Amino acid sequence: MAIENTVKEFKEYLGRINMYNEAMATLSFDGETVAPPGSVEARAKRSGFFGLEIFNMITSDKMSNFLEELEPHIDTFDDILKGEYRIAKKEYDDNTKIPAEIVKEMRELGEESAAIWAQARGEDDFGKFAPYLKRLIELQKKIIEYRSNGENPYDILLADYETGMNMEVYDVFFNKLKESVVPLLKKIKESNKKIDKSFVNAHVDLESQKAITKLIAETLGFNLERGHIAESTHPFCGGSSKYDVRFTTRYLEDDFLSSFYSVMHESGHAIYEQNVADDIAHTVLGTGASMGLHESQSRFYENYLGRSGAFWEVMHEDLLKLLPEELQTITAHQFYEAMNEVKPSLIRVESDELTYNLHIIIRYEIERMIFTEDVDVNDLPNIWNQKYEEYLGITPPTNALGVLQDIHWSWAAFGYFPTYALGSAYSAQIAAHMKKDLDVEALIRAQDFEAIKGWLTEKIHQYGKTYTPNQLMKKSFGEEFNVDYYVDYLTEKYSKLYDLA
Amino acid sequence: MAIENTVKEFKEYLGRINMYNEAMATLSFDGETVAPPGSVEARAKRSGFFGLEIFNMITSDKMSNFLEELEPHIDTFDDILKGEYRIAKKEYDDNTKIPAEIVKEMRELGEESAAIWAQARGEDDFGKFAPYLKRLIELQKKIIEYRSNGENPYDILLADYETGMNMEVYDVFFNKLKESVVPLLKKIKESNKKIDKSFVNAHVDLESQKAITKLIAETLGFNLERGHIAESTHPFCGGSSKYDVRFTTRYLEDDFLSSFYSVMHESGHAIYEQNVADDIAHTVLGTGASMGLHESQSRFYENYLGRSGAFWEVMHEDLLKLLPEELQTITAHQFYEAMNEVKPSLIRVESDELTYNLHIIIRYEIERMIFTEDVDVNDLPNIWNQKYEEYLGITPPTNALGVLQDIHWSWAAFGYFPTYALGSAYSAQIAAHMKKDLDVEALIRAQDFEAIKGWLTEKIHQYGKTYTPNQLMKKSFGEEFNVDYYVDYLTEKYSKLYDLA
Repeated sequence: MAIENTVKEFKEYLGRINMYNEAMATLSFDGETVAPPGSVEARAKRSGFFGLEIFNMITSDKMSNFLEELEPHIDTFDDILKGEYRIAKKEYDDNTKIPAEIVKEMRELGEESAAIWAQARGEDDFGKFAPYLKRLIELQKKIIEYRSNGENPYDILLADYETGMNMEVYDVFFNKLKESVVPLLKKIKESNKKIDKSFVNAHVDLESQKAITKLIAETLGFNLERGHIAESTHPFCGGSSKYDVRFTTRYLEDDFLSSFYSVMHESGHAIYEQNVADDIAHTVLGTGASMGLHESQSRFYENYLGRSGAFWEVMHEDLLKLLPEELQTITAHQFYEAMNEVKPSLIRVESDELTYNLHIIIRYEIERMIFTEDVDVNDLPNIWNQKYEEYLGITPPTNALGVLQDIHWSWAAFGYFPTYALGSAYSAQIAAHMKKDLDVEALIRAQDFEAIKGWLTEKIHQYGKTYTPNQLMKKSFGEEFNVDYYVDYLTEKYSKLYDLA
Repeated sequence: MAIENTVKEFKEYLGRINMYNEAMATLSFDGETVAPPGSVEARAKRSGFFGLEIFNMITSDKMSNFLEELEPHIDTFDDILKGEYRIAKKEYDDNTKIPAEIVKEMRELGEESAAIWAQARGEDDFGKFAPYLKRLIELQKKIIEYRSNGENPYDILLADYETGMNMEVYDVFFNKLKESVVPLLKKIKESNKKIDKSFVNAHVDLESQKAITKLIAETLGFNLERGHIAESTHPFCGGSSKYDVRFTTRYLEDDFLSSFYSVMHESGHAIYEQNVADDIAHTVLGTGASMGLHESQSRFYENYLGRSGAFWEVMHEDLLKLLPEELQTITAHQFYEAMNEVKPSLIRVESDELTYNLHIIIRYEIERMIFTEDVDVNDLPNIWNQKYEEYLGITPPTNALGVLQDIHWSWAAFGYFPTYALGSAYSAQIAAHMKKDLDVEALIRAQDFEAIKGWLTEKIHQYGKTYTPNQLMKKSFGEEFNVDYYVDYLTEKYSKLYDLA
């Protein structure tokens, strides 16, 4: 068969798979937002059923034949076809190398472990979770063996969550970050600067908070003609294609900034999804390039914009209109300072922009030990607590507030946390390049977020998953990931805020 | 292969089809309620894609083989398997007899006609729609030829919407109804009784209306653990299985009874769906027996309960708590009378319980002429108007308010309207049997709607689609459809309300 025909059939086949994926994405959003609790079992079965339908297509002989026939012609492909081939090949390989019974074993162990983890955290009993964690690590190592060509197991996991990443890159990243943030934090703690943020717990009714959500999302450039905002316990961004992008938030009456920053964050993800090019919209490429780059957009909107002085200055008047009487005297600068207070805390998800990185570094260093040094899981609480004391200057009083705080390990999601810090560092690098082309602060002051979105679309959003993260960074900015921008950004911002020399 | 194995594989195959149908049902609900407007094209493509996947399974050689292998053994099947076979066979036959290109032609003509109909109604120009209506009728007749074994074409259409129905039964039904309702209406118009319903247009804010929705739905027995209520332009009931039943309503600030009766009506549909037996939940039988019987449940809740004096008496106090100051002096009896005012009107969907039937009879008689007498479509406006004058005593001033008012004919949905009147008549028949077992009025006064739901579940809901409407009526009530109950119900209720001798 002529190669053109194979390409056409390959694309049609991928289109079929994409139809299923889009349908599942909408059903999953429905499940997280409005589906009634009594449907949970039926939904789990449905998601298993269609997951298997998709798995069967991804790993079929038909797919294998396509990949084989196309392989000698890759160099002649355009970038889109190259991207589609790259992802189809990776999904085929990842899903065919591991025996089905081990995949099943891991899924079952994960479900059981998540339930045990919840009990263990509730009872502050690490010993209860420890044997499960041990089994999860062992099974994960076994699974990696099937996929390994001699690479280090942790490198394989890191690359699963961010193509191109490995310990070599992350070691440089996290060491540089640690070397700057730990002493900076020490100086901040010794400084005399006191920030009053007591006003943030003012009561703000839900209708006002919903109005704030709409104001923020639309101001930033989230397009409601092709988008929908809902509520869920944990805020997230989803949707099926650029024509139907959705995110959620959660409203707390005595903490309006919780939803405010969720909306800033998820708007960043959502704007990325809405602005991939039309010609990749309904393909496997029609979504963010990677977890790290996706997070770079959410962090850009949440932190770089949403925690900047200029943003609060221009939004201050509009926001006050939606806030209660008791907040009317709070100035833009007071908001700005309160949003950026640095205060070491035990819980990652409640931490500030600066110390957040230390939480991630600790997880990275521990995961690295698990996969390279055969550390005994029973030692993890101690290791955890020592690192919190060393980096953050605080020691968790319980394991529930320490090593047991996150659910991710009970899903065997090792290698996942680093992408969060990577996203923030990418966002600083991208912002530095943006400043060469645009007067970003002037645009913020002019509330011209369209120009900012347009630049991000041109450099990043339009390409979706066409390129790997490294390819995209080189193509758009002439360089791969570089942590220095982030170190500079944090140092400058927090030195100024805390009046450090 | 042993027949047990064929049965097992047949059930698995139907289970697959059902998974797709359940997924599509949820996606369709999502599309009607929250999906953004910009996704309409992508959603149409998706629904076409999965519609074809389902069509391919329903009409496959595999299905044909199952049906052929199982056919000699039908008598040995239990009722559930008989029902599954009956429906699979009907769907196979209906979908394999008509050539694909004609199905496509009808779909395209329907889409075009719906757009033209909207224009024609907007411009009050029947002549614009007439040629499309002519083509729709011709194409529908052509399609029926493929399916006919000599039956009258309109009988085939009537049976499409309600198994077991035909002109012979409907002629008796509608003639008896007409003979009682037309003179009853004449007497009502001549009576001196005046009902004041001006208060129904009081302003009721949306939050209060939402609270009323919840109160009503929960009081009637809609289970929110396995259900969800949303908003949409046209209220409807949907959902994927008894574990996830959903309905919608629409709130109008100056007409709170619009949503009130939508909720009563849709709760009836929804309670039916929620109470099929567990063992048919995820099968093709896990939904209402027919359009007519489904409508019997919605009409029972909307009219038999919701427009009864006893219902307003017991709900009066709770409802007043959610209604504004200006309605606090309205008595339960005033509500009752206002909800039952008889007033001939031009528009079916705005008409009262009594005259509603006349709208349906007129449509039935005209459709009957179209399919049995080759009436010229250009004569339809005149025929329509004459019948309105004869039965309702009013003549439509425009065709937009007359023959052009409903969209259904532009979809070629001939034979569909009669099921609405049938539903009301079924509900009166069912209620008469309920009164033999239960003191219904006492239960309403005790707000014991669980007992009523329990009885309906035992007699109707639990069986889903296991039996045809006639089989179910005979099984549960010892008789087939009988219009006399409805004639008696209407005569008694409206004679009393209008103080007729």
